[in-house]
Amino acid sequence: MNKKVLIVGGVAGGASAAARLRRLDETAEIVMFERDEYISFANCGLPYYIGETIKDRNKLLVQTPEAMKARFNIDVRINSEVTGIDAKNKKVTVASKTNGNYEESYDYLILSPGGKAIRPNIPGINSDKIFTLRNIPDTDHIKAYVDRKGINSAVVIGGGFIGVEMAENLKERGMKVTLVEAAPHILAPFDSDMVVMAEKEMVESGVGLVLGDGVKSFADNGNQVQVTLNSDTKIDADMIILAIGVSPDTAFLKESGLEFGPRGHIVVNEKMETNLEGVYAVGDAIEVVDYITKQQTAIALAGPANKQGRIAADNVAGLYSTYKGTQGSSILKVFGLTAASTGANERTLQRANMPYKVIYVHPVSHASYYPGAIPMSLKLIFNEEGTVLGAQGIGYDGVDKRIDVIATAIRFNGTVDDLAELELSYAPPFSSAKDPVNMAGFVAQNVLAGRMDVVAWKDIENYSSQDYILLDVRTEMEYSNGHLDGAMNIPVDSLRERLNELDKSKTIVEYCQVGLRGYIAARILLQNGFKVVNVTGGYKTSAMIGY
Amino acid sequence: MNKKVLIVGGVAGGASAAARLRRLDETAEIVMFERDEYISFANCGLPYYIGETIKDRNKLLVQTPEAMKARFNIDVRINSEVTGIDAKNKKVTVASKTNGNYEESYDYLILSPGGKAIRPNIPGINSDKIFTLRNIPDTDHIKAYVDRKGINSAVVIGGGFIGVEMAENLKERGMKVTLVEAAPHILAPFDSDMVVMAEKEMVESGVGLVLGDGVKSFADNGNQVQVTLNSDTKIDADMIILAIGVSPDTAFLKESGLEFGPRGHIVVNEKMETNLEGVYAVGDAIEVVDYITKQQTAIALAGPANKQGRIAADNVAGLYSTYKGTQGSSILKVFGLTAASTGANERTLQRANMPYKVIYVHPVSHASYYPGAIPMSLKLIFNEEGTVLGAQGIGYDGVDKRIDVIATAIRFNGTVDDLAELELSYAPPFSSAKDPVNMAGFVAQNVLAGRMDVVAWKDIENYSSQDYILLDVRTEMEYSNGHLDGAMNIPVDSLRERLNELDKSKTIVEYCQVGLRGYIAARILLQNGFKVVNVTGGYKTSAMIGY
Ligand SMILES: Cc1cc2nc3c(=O)[nH]c(=O)nc-3n(C[C@H](O)[C@H](O)[C@H](O)COP(=O)(O)OP(=O)(O)OC[C@H]3O[C@@H](n4cnc5c(N)ncnc54)[C@H](O)[C@@H]3O)c2cc1C
Ligand SMILES: Cc1cc2nc3c(=O)[nH]c(=O)nc-3n(C[C@H](O)[C@H](O)[C@H](O)COP(=O)(O)OP(=O)(O)OC[C@H]3O[C@@H](n4cnc5c(N)ncnc54)[C@H](O)[C@@H]3O)c2cc1C
Ligand SMILES: CC(C)(COP(=O)(O)OP(=O)(O)OC[C@H]1O[C@@H](n2cnc3c(N)ncnc32)[C@H](O)[C@@H]1OP(=O)(O)O)[C@@H](O)C(=O)NCCC(=O)NCCS
Ligand SMILES: CC(C)(COP(=O)(O)OP(=O)(O)OC[C@H]1O[C@@H](n2cnc3c(N)ncnc32)[C@H](O)[C@@H]1OP(=O)(O)O)[C@@H](O)C(=O)NCCC(=O)NCCS
Repeated sequence: MNKKVLIVGGVAGGASAAARLRRLDETAEIVMFERDEYISFANCGLPYYIGETIKDRNKLLVQTPEAMKARFNIDVRINSEVTGIDAKNKKVTVASKTNGNYEESYDYLILSPGGKAIRPNIPGINSDKIFTLRNIPDTDHIKAYVDRKGINSAVVIGGGFIGVEMAENLKERGMKVTLVEAAPHILAPFDSDMVVMAEKEMVESGVGLVLGDGVKSFADNGNQVQVTLNSDTKIDADMIILAIGVSPDTAFLKESGLEFGPRGHIVVNEKMETNLEGVYAVGDAIEVVDYITKQQTAIALAGPANKQGRIAADNVAGLYSTYKGTQGSSILKVFGLTAASTGANERTLQRANMPYKVIYVHPVSHASYYPGAIPMSLKLIFNEEGTVLGAQGIGYDGVDKRIDVIATAIRFNGTVDDLAELELSYAPPFSSAKDPVNMAGFVAQNVLAGRMDVVAWKDIENYSSQDYILLDVRTEMEYSNGHLDGAMNIPVDSLRERLNELDKSKTIVEYCQVGLRGYIAARILLQNGFKVVNVTGGYKTSAMIGY
Repeated sequence: MNKKVLIVGGVAGGASAAARLRRLDETAEIVMFERDEYISFANCGLPYYIGETIKDRNKLLVQTPEAMKARFNIDVRINSEVTGIDAKNKKVTVASKTNGNYEESYDYLILSPGGKAIRPNIPGINSDKIFTLRNIPDTDHIKAYVDRKGINSAVVIGGGFIGVEMAENLKERGMKVTLVEAAPHILAPFDSDMVVMAEKEMVESGVGLVLGDGVKSFADNGNQVQVTLNSDTKIDADMIILAIGVSPDTAFLKESGLEFGPRGHIVVNEKMETNLEGVYAVGDAIEVVDYITKQQTAIALAGPANKQGRIAADNVAGLYSTYKGTQGSSILKVFGLTAASTGANERTLQRANMPYKVIYVHPVSHASYYPGAIPMSLKLIFNEEGTVLGAQGIGYDGVDKRIDVIATAIRFNGTVDDLAELELSYAPPFSSAKDPVNMAGFVAQNVLAGRMDVVAWKDIENYSSQDYILLDVRTEMEYSNGHLDGAMNIPVDSLRERLNELDKSKTIVEYCQVGLRGYIAARILLQNGFKVVNVTGGYKTSAMIGY
């Protein structure tokens, strides 16, 4: 007998599962339920359509019900909400806008209901000038509003990916935009020392940034909304975008007997199977394993949702296919800047009680003698055994490449030695003979081998100023253009001749511009019997984080 | 006692070894001999300086002897040619332009003499209008000549990386350029089915391309050189660039007792040690292991040379450090195009008698709905066990990223399953939820699992036309805009209804535009009892290779 497979949710995870399943099984009966009118749309493109970078609305609609029928023989039922599961009898209940309520039986059920924007219960939240963004109707709604005459200012609440994208896209539309983030920094996948660059880019691009201040209440005065922050700061704007995160859209599953995680995510095994027989779940609504910490986590990203949909379909079709956990690889355009990350950041590792080491490099995107070379900042996180745990990159050209290369190495449990040895493709327009990833590997090798002790700027306060000498090893010119308070200057190229100016009883905390000359100076000092630490990332990093 | 280390060659391998060694050992005596006047120059930038993309000659000089002295305390001796080794007494003989001939003893010797341009012994080769390009003096020489009034045409002999770069850069200078290649195609790291795109780009950019025709003789008539090819074609030009490859610059080592490979490369072990005690060798002059075939090979690339220099220094300093073989990862700008490859190509695998499978995908550089998305062609080569053996990419934006990601996977002996599962960073300006690398992994998985039989265009002749039906599954519009001779048309979206038009006794050879719809059609046909093969890469690949 042919399998009957129901799918709940018709976008990233659901539509991917449907298409894959049909390719694997021409005879299965496949029904895909979608609550809204649209399936298979480009969630990730929505902000850019509002910002008018994407001009043609049709481009957002990757598939239509008709096309899914013609190509994949899928019975797509739009405007059809699944309202519950009867797991014992293998049935779902459906509320259809056109066909009323009915039941549908299944052999297999794949759940991909996604996540819904969080709308906290604070005063004034019900103003119709407060928008969230998840789907095409939300997009139409926001865009129509922005297109109106007289809509000139917006407050975006939340500095996650969607918040930052919306701030940028509304700014592109010529609006006055303020982004409010309750945490000390935006973009949680990044550590604060890296994300400051993205914050700077936003501010320089004209977005007002309010950090470390949450929303207390909204007040709609008819014309505008006034946002009151916890600090009692008040901001008036024509519209509000609320982007403080998503929560699993799983309310309809409450009574199903499904097992949920602490924050309401569906619990699945490696094969995407839930605790209920024949029921699979994928996408934003599920809990997954963090590839690095091995702890349960949730990740609202399209790559994982698509792949999990494919894996669920494989297993329904009788193939063995598993999801091995998420690295959280993610990337974002922040005006001119690219910010990307993979693996764990410092906060995650601290929470998981996993010890780690950190280095920074600031290599150029390609050979410095070839036009257009531009520096990036790369942060590499690894453990005592050398295993790479995470990386963050901020810059312009080529940041995506380096983070994806490191993401690949992490997938194979690669070490910093592996990064040092990677043979990547090189010609002057594309890279350097020592690629930035190799360079990060070299520096990490040196730290692990004790060839250089490094300290991060934020940890410098651990040294009592009595016990150390702050030494700037850049040129006299660089030093006179700006240096740290209390630093003395001996350029690395004259260090060997001027060792007698330094006190061997003290620790020498030295820095250069990015860390390279500081490393060379450290090697000279160390081998001459000095105690020395090199400030990783150099003066550039100190400037970045406003040390 | 302090080590005394001599280094022969002061550029990629040599200077890297010197710098690393000093960082590891502040007390070693390090002497670096360079035959020419310049050290540490950007070999890879030379063509772009001639082409005036790099405008400032100083940018080519990464280090000077004075700076190497100041920073690394290296005794740099330029204009000093090492003329021989006396391994028994651990001495070298030196011919210095300023200090005459002398001997210098060593505890350790690192050889990085590089490769010299091959100048075959054919009639007319000694014309002073025939140039080769290796170093700064060559560059000055060529540039001065090109800068002259009346120099308007060039023939470049050899379609390797340097030949193609020179053809492009001379074209950028407004010259009439013809590139002559004796092999059927340029750029040997690529298979012929991929490289045709680069050839097309060159021709469309105005470079004359003569393939499969070698040079028989040159004749300098005072004004111009006439090149006579094996086919007796004659081409006149104001200058000739000879770029038919490099051979190890090891003549001075003939009597040293060093072991050489069949083509004159120095034989080393993993630690870069030669057969002579205390003597190491790195760079273009050595033989290395091919990471894929495990056979001995040679590779003239800067990344390996730099890394090998660092490894040799490590071992001299008493650290254990190894070179694990070359993947030959390489990349080239061909006018607007990017061509990159890693691992083995079909020719190499055939020579090594290693069975393999091939798939092609033509994904877009980033989400198709976001402006600027542009297709690339990716070829993936893997074996029956799924191990990735090689990849080639040609396109525009993002080709370098995908080849570097696959290069990383190859380094870890990754499989096509690994490629399918890689979690790469995605946002619309940078990639797709299923990255091109994931996509290549998916397609390869399907081929290995027998979910789709693929055939490459070049192998279609294996099917007798009696036994197969050629089926075009694209839309009627695409079909009428151009299709293969004898193909019938059933669009994939109506295939299920029109199965009765096909003869089950014959093999159905079907194609779409790039392979995706062909795959879907193949799944439909296969599961309905047809014998079917999908032409990998689709109509696009057929057009590419001029099928
Ligand atoms: C504005 C925006 C930008 C984004 N940008 C990126 C990005 O750049 N990169 C990235 O990786 N990710 C991005 N994402 C996240 C990505 O889109 C999601 O991770 C992905 O779509 C999740 O897939 P899913 O199938 O789990 O859920 P969804 O794609 O949200 O699909 C779930 C569908 O299920 C339907 N549904 C829910 N409950 C029911 C029910 N009971 N019955 C019937 N139907 C139901 C919903 O209507 C919805 O259409 C973005 C998301 C948004 C909203
Ligand atoms: C035009 C050009 C473009 C290139 N582009 C790229 C590219 O885009 N990507 C890439 O990866 N690679 C590229 N390469 C190759 C790369 O430059 C080489 O692989 C690399 O420089 C090899 O390093 P090496 O140390 O072995 O030799 P070299 O860098 O050539 O250095 C050898 C030095 O040794 C000196 N020497 C030789 N014999 C003696 C002796 N007996 N005594 C004293 N000195 C001696 C020579 O004068 C020479 O300066 C390019 C090369 C050229 C010429
Ligand atoms: C110029 C040249 C001598 C430099 O050699 P080098 O000092 O080893 O190389 P780099 O300047 O790239 O610096 C790399 C070193 O700095 C360290 N480093 C880089 N960034 C750092 C940072 N931010 N903090 C600390 N250390 C850093 C690396 O760890 C590495 O040191 P290690 O090898 O001891 O681990 C050599 O590369 C050369 O001659 N190049 C030109 C010739 C050439 O390569 N041609 C072919 C390509 S065109
Ligand atoms: C549109 C949608 C239904 C497509 O699903 P899909 O058919 O699985 O995905 P694609 O069109 O990318 O095609 C991938 C399939 O084609 C195959 N393929 C791709 N290129 C191929 C080629 N050249 N030759 C042969 N097969 C090819 C792949 O192997 C894969 O098949 P498999 O899963 O059976 O191995 C689904 O991705 C979707 O709904 N997307 C929009 C929503 C979304 O993802 N939003 C978040 C991002 S904005």
